[in-house]
Amino acid sequence: MSDTGIEKWGVYEVALSGPSDGNPYLDVELEAQFSFKERIVRVPGFYDGNGTYKIRFMPDTEGTWSYETASPVSALDGKSGTFTVTAAGKGNHGPVRVRNKFHFAYADGTPFLSFGTTCYAWTHQPLNLQEQTLKTLSQTRFNKIRMGVFPKDYPYNTNKPLHDVFLPDDSGKWDFDKPNFEAFRHFETQIAALARLGIEADVIIFHPYDRWDHANMPAEQDYRYVAYLTARIAAYRNVWWSLANEYDFMIDSKPMAQWDRYFQIIEENDPYRHLASIHNGDVNANYDHRKPWVTHTCIQNWDVKRTSEWRQEYGKPVVNDEPEYEGNILQAWGNITAQELVHRYWITLMRGGYAGHGETYTHPDDILWWAKGGVLRGEAWKRIGFLRDLLEEDTKHGLEPLGTPGSWPWSRVSAAQDDDVTYIYLGEHQPAIWSTGLPLDSRNYQVDVIDTWNMTVTPATIVDAPVLHPVRHGDIIRGGTADAAFAVELPSQPYLAIRVRPAS
Amino acid sequence: MSDTGIEKWGVYEVALSGPSDGNPYLDVELEAQFSFKERIVRVPGFYDGNGTYKIRFMPDTEGTWSYETASPVSALDGKSGTFTVTAAGKGNHGPVRVRNKFHFAYADGTPFLSFGTTCYAWTHQPLNLQEQTLKTLSQTRFNKIRMGVFPKDYPYNTNKPLHDVFLPDDSGKWDFDKPNFEAFRHFETQIAALARLGIEADVIIFHPYDRWDHANMPAEQDYRYVAYLTARIAAYRNVWWSLANEYDFMIDSKPMAQWDRYFQIIEENDPYRHLASIHNGDVNANYDHRKPWVTHTCIQNWDVKRTSEWRQEYGKPVVNDEPEYEGNILQAWGNITAQELVHRYWITLMRGGYAGHGETYTHPDDILWWAKGGVLRGEAWKRIGFLRDLLEEDTKHGLEPLGTPGSWPWSRVSAAQDDDVTYIYLGEHQPAIWSTGLPLDSRNYQVDVIDTWNMTVTPATIVDAPVLHPVRHGDIIRGGTADAAFAVELPSQPYLAIRVRPAS
Repeated sequence: MSDTGIEKWGVYEVALSGPSDGNPYLDVELEAQFSFKERIVRVPGFYDGNGTYKIRFMPDTEGTWSYETASPVSALDGKSGTFTVTAAGKGNHGPVRVRNKFHFAYADGTPFLSFGTTCYAWTHQPLNLQEQTLKTLSQTRFNKIRMGVFPKDYPYNTNKPLHDVFLPDDSGKWDFDKPNFEAFRHFETQIAALARLGIEADVIIFHPYDRWDHANMPAEQDYRYVAYLTARIAAYRNVWWSLANEYDFMIDSKPMAQWDRYFQIIEENDPYRHLASIHNGDVNANYDHRKPWVTHTCIQNWDVKRTSEWRQEYGKPVVNDEPEYEGNILQAWGNITAQELVHRYWITLMRGGYAGHGETYTHPDDILWWAKGGVLRGEAWKRIGFLRDLLEEDTKHGLEPLGTPGSWPWSRVSAAQDDDVTYIYLGEHQPAIWSTGLPLDSRNYQVDVIDTWNMTVTPATIVDAPVLHPVRHGDIIRGGTADAAFAVELPSQPYLAIRVRPAS
Repeated sequence: MSDTGIEKWGVYEVALSGPSDGNPYLDVELEAQFSFKERIVRVPGFYDGNGTYKIRFMPDTEGTWSYETASPVSALDGKSGTFTVTAAGKGNHGPVRVRNKFHFAYADGTPFLSFGTTCYAWTHQPLNLQEQTLKTLSQTRFNKIRMGVFPKDYPYNTNKPLHDVFLPDDSGKWDFDKPNFEAFRHFETQIAALARLGIEADVIIFHPYDRWDHANMPAEQDYRYVAYLTARIAAYRNVWWSLANEYDFMIDSKPMAQWDRYFQIIEENDPYRHLASIHNGDVNANYDHRKPWVTHTCIQNWDVKRTSEWRQEYGKPVVNDEPEYEGNILQAWGNITAQELVHRYWITLMRGGYAGHGETYTHPDDILWWAKGGVLRGEAWKRIGFLRDLLEEDTKHGLEPLGTPGSWPWSRVSAAQDDDVTYIYLGEHQPAIWSTGLPLDSRNYQVDVIDTWNMTVTPATIVDAPVLHPVRHGDIIRGGTADAAFAVELPSQPYLAIRVRPAS
C-alpha cells in the first residue's frame, strides 16, 4: 500500500488488525523497519485496544520511505508499504536537540531558547478546562510545558481525573498490565495540540503524588509502561522525556538503578533520541546528570545564582524548571512574588541556563495553573514572554555567562554574551553608572537599557567610562584605567538590564 | 600614689616619664602587674612620644587594685600605686563576649545583638566630618562600627588623612618604626567617643587599599605594630579585633602563617581577650574560623541564605559584615537597594547570624558613609534599627534557626526562635495563609504580623490551620493533618514576618 504523504517530522502511523484475546499488552510483540535508501530505522509498535496495533514513525528526511512489520503474530507480520515525506510545514522545526554543549536547537537549526511553564495534570482535567489551557498557552510565549502522564493527588488536586491511566481488575484493584488506551489516546491528542502551538511537551513519566499506586508499581510493570509509552509517543516531535518529577521522593520503591534502567529502556525504544532528563525534589538530591543517557540537567532550585555551577558540574544544558512559583499558597515553593520569579528567570538565563515558570495562586475551586492549567492570573508570564522576545532578536549560539563561576563581579551581577551581543542584568543592584563587562573596543554599538518589569527598551545614555582607581595591594593599577570603552548612565533603580550590540 | 577611682570596665591609665633618646618604640620594654587580692594581671605598656610611657588597664572587678611596673629602664621600673574601682556607670556593660556558642553578650550579662555598620576611614577625615559621623551614629541603632587604623586609598577615597599613622624618615620614606603618636591618640579618642554612644569599635588592623605601603610592611614591623596597637587600645572595653578587611587580597605579602601570628600577638598582649576575627574578600577565601584564636566568624558574602551553613562549618557566631551595601556606585558590592539590604539583614538574623550595614551612594564630594561617615542618606538604616528594637523586646539567649540547614521549608523561608518566641521571615514569599513553624500546642499566644519595610506590627488574623494533604509517596499522610495549632492570614505581599510569643 502507498500513502499520499506526510511532512517531515510529522507522525506517520501504520494501523493493523490483530488478535484481541488474552492480554496483547503483555503478549504480542510488534515492530517495523522503516527504510530510506540503505538506511533502516527500527520502530517498536504498540497495542491500542480492540484488536488494533499501531506503529508510529517520525521521518526526518524528505523522499520515499518504506516499511515492513515484524511480529511472531502472523496477522501483524510482514506488512509493508511506502509513503512520501514532504517538506516540513510552517512552524514545524523538528524535535529539539542539544546544541553548543549548553544550549538547544530544533532539528532544522533554529535555536530553541527554552521558556517553560508547568501544568502537571492539565490533561486530566475536564475537557473545557483543557481547551482553556490551550487557548491561554496560545496567548503566551511559553514553548515548553511540564505535564504528567499520570494524574495527581495532592493539595488542590483531589478531583477525579478525566481518564484513569490503568484499569482495575475484576476485584476492583488497579491492574498495571491493563492500560486504559483511551487515556493514552487523549494524552497524545494534547501532545499534538501542543505541537501545533509550537510547544514542547516535557512528559513526566513518574511522580510521587499519587492515590492510584502508580508510584508503587513493581519494577517489571514500570519497565513495560516506560517501553509502551515510548513506543506510543516518541514519534511526536515535541516530546521530551522527563523521567520524574521529584524522583528522590520515590527512591524507596524505585532505587537508583531502576531510574537508570528507565533511561535505557527509553533509549532502546526511541529511535529519535528525544531530550531526556530527570527532576529532583530535595535541592541536595540532584540526579547525576553526567550519566550518558541524560541529555540535559533538570534542576529544582531557588538559588539561581548557582546556575553556572550546575553547568560546570554536569557539562550539559541546565533547565531549572522550578526556581519556585509565582503565587500565594501555603507551600513555600509556590508563593514568591511575580517580581521575584521574573528576577530569577533573568538571573538563570544570564548565567547560561534556562528557567521554568509556574503559577500557584489560591483559587476558590482549586484551579491552580501549575497543576490544572486554565487561565493565568499572575504577572510574571508577560515579563517572561518579553524576555524571550528580547533574546530572540539576537539569538545565535546561546547565552554564555561572562566570567568564570564566582569571578568578580559576576557572582553578584549576572551577564551573558551570545556572539557579539552582551546582556548585563543588574537585578537587585542599582548603580547610577555601569561599565564592567561593556566592550573594551571603540566600535559603534547600540546600547539599550531594559526595564525588565515594565518591559521597556530605551536607548542608553552613554558617558565616559570611569577611570577606576583600584589601588588594591597585589593588583595595583596606580593612577587607574577604565575597564570599558564607555559607561552607561542609569536611573538608580533595580531590575534593569543593559544590552549592547553592534550598531547596524 | 593613689587615685580617687575609676569605674569597672573603664580605662585606668598610668603615665610615666622616661627616656626619649634613641627610638623608645623599638628599644624600651615596659609592663605592669595589676593586682586584686591574689589575682595578678600582666599588662603591656607603650611609648606615647615625648618621653611619656603609658600603661592602660581595664579592671573587671570592683574594689581596690594595685599595680607595679617592670622595665629594664630604671625610670620606668618598680613604679606602683593603688586605685579604687567603683561600679560600672550607666550604659557601661563591659566588653562583649561570645555567649551560647553562636551569640554575644556584654560582660554584665546583657545580650548583645550585633547591629553593625561600616565607616572604614571615618577617623581619618576632617574633624567636623567626624563630629557629624558621631552625631549621626547617635541617632541610629547601630551598636558596632567597622573602622580601620590605617587610612584608605581607593575610589572615592583619595583625600589626605587627618594624621599619618607612621612618620617618614629623613629621606621622606615612610618609617614603620616611627609611629605618629598623635594619630594613635586621635584614634583612641574616637574609640572612647563610640564607647559613650554604646557602640563597639570593630578595629581593622590591616587592609589592602593603600598608598602608604602599610600593606607591604615587613613581618617584623607588622608584629611590632600589632603588639603596640594592642597595648594601646585593649583597655577600651568596646574594642573588637578585626585583623583585616579582605586579608586574602594581601596574601602575597602576608602569608597565612603571618595572619595566625598576628592573632597570637594579640592574645599575648590583650589580657581581656577581646573578640577577634578576620574578614575575607573573595567569597571562597574565608579564613579558617575554627582556629582557636578566632572568637567569631567574619564573613563577606551576599548569599545570606547560607548563614546557617557557616554556623555549622565554624561552630562560632557568624557576623556577615558585608552582605553588600545599600547604594548606587559602580561597584557591585555597593549598589543594592535599601529593600534588598533590609531583606538580607532579616534573612541573616533569622538564620542565626548577625549582619552588617553600609551605605555607598555617590556624592559630589565623595563623602560616602561606608568610608568617611557623615550623614546617612539611605533607607535601610531605619528598618535595621526597627529590627533591633523588635528583637530586643524578647531577646534572651539569641536566635536559633528553625530546622537543620536545608530542611524543608527553612532553606526557602527563614525562621528562628529565642526561648519561647518564634519569628518567621517570609521575605520574597507572599503566602495568603501560613502555618509551618507556628506552635503545635494550643497555649495562648500573641501573634503579630510585621511589615519589615513599613515598620509596623499588627495583631495577626488567626484562622484554623489548613489540613495538609501531603500524599507524597514514602511520606504518606492520607487524609492529612495540620502542621500547627493555628494559621495566620496574610495580605499576599512580600517582606512580611510573623512573630509568635506567649500571651502575657
